[in-house]
Amino acid sequence: MKGTFITFEGIEGSGKSTQVELLCRELARRGREVVCTREPGGTALGRSVRSLLLDPSNRGLAAGAELFLYLADRCQHTAERVGPALERGMVVVCDRWADASVAYQGYGRGVEIERIREWNRFATRGIRPQVTILLDLPAETGLARARARNRALGTAGREDRFEEEELAFHERVRRGYLELARREPGRFQVVDAAPGAAQTHRRILSLIEPLLQGGAAPGGR
Amino acid sequence: MKGTFITFEGIEGSGKSTQVELLCRELARRGREVVCTREPGGTALGRSVRSLLLDPSNRGLAAGAELFLYLADRCQHTAERVGPALERGMVVVCDRWADASVAYQGYGRGVEIERIREWNRFATRGIRPQVTILLDLPAETGLARARARNRALGTAGREDRFEEEELAFHERVRRGYLELARREPGRFQVVDAAPGAAQTHRRILSLIEPLLQGGAAPGGR
Repeated sequence: MKGTFITFEGIEGSGKSTQVELLCRELARRGREVVCTREPGGTALGRSVRSLLLDPSNRGLAAGAELFLYLADRCQHTAERVGPALERGMVVVCDRWADASVAYQGYGRGVEIERIREWNRFATRGIRPQVTILLDLPAETGLARARARNRALGTAGREDRFEEEELAFHERVRRGYLELARREPGRFQVVDAAPGAAQTHRRILSLIEPLLQGGAAPGGR
Repeated sequence: MKGTFITFEGIEGSGKSTQVELLCRELARRGREVVCTREPGGTALGRSVRSLLLDPSNRGLAAGAELFLYLADRCQHTAERVGPALERGMVVVCDRWADASVAYQGYGRGVEIERIREWNRFATRGIRPQVTILLDLPAETGLARARARNRALGTAGREDRFEEEELAFHERVRRGYLELARREPGRFQVVDAAPGAAQTHRRILSLIEPLLQGGAAPGGR
């Protein structure tokens, strides 16, 4: 794999989308060839799948069906976009990736984690990020931020299917992410998401600087 | 499992939909409580997934993504419809089920068959049909029939993503189905789909009569 693969993870309201955008802009400013993408929704198929997954009218979605929809999106995203970009030596920055299925459908919904890992390996063709930034903050704070954002966007009361979930669900997801980070300290960088966007951005940049210089990821491999 | 589960399989143009409908009508006429359903598309989620799968503009769909979409549909269908109906002791007649993924994505597209079987077990919660009617005919005949039907419906030239596939693909799928039937003679009933609909219907009824009487499937279990 010639390129550089950086993923962002975190619960709702942790500021992933903002940080992904800030990082992609900075990389482009430095003249790097960047693919800025997300899951679900990084392909035409993915955008259709995303709307199914977030639609609150799909409240009765079975946990397994939810998982398979994410895997379908990931499979297509890997084949069509992430894999080819990495092959060409580009930097790929992705808002959520395989870890999200382990955190949400595994820790959050109780699907067996070893199964999810195996299915992820198939969907990603074994491609793994060099660095995963985990934006961490209490679930309560994240949800309050997500709702404030919805109010600002005029979509208050139209929370998506995940934002609608109870607090305990988001707490399980957060604990799941922190557990994943503990198990793979060489890949994960846990970043406190409480400070403002600019400060968090500077922290993230300092963490991935060695990787961008062509060196190893900060925690070693 | 208190109910009776009958599935229909076969390549495009083998007449499954017609036979499923004729059988469901006959069962209802006899006063049986029947759920007449299909894959993909037996639930609201499934109908959305079905339109993604058949849409010819999704030509670049990765084989794995296609498989995961079918599994998402199957998972939801099992949880929401097939499982509860069988629990209530009803007769469920389904146009395609787990075998279709083995035939199409396994034999047809080359995804490892053991993987598909394992994922099917998860998606179906281990539910298996008592009888599977395989409507068999040469792929060339089936495709010609599907195209004639499209002409009759005024949708000529708007073949779905599967009908667009080359003949060799459909021949692999047919061989896959026949191989599945050879491996499980107790569950599969291979029915020649060349005769007219009424004759084929009578043949199918005679084959499943013992099951409807509460006895074993014709080939034993």
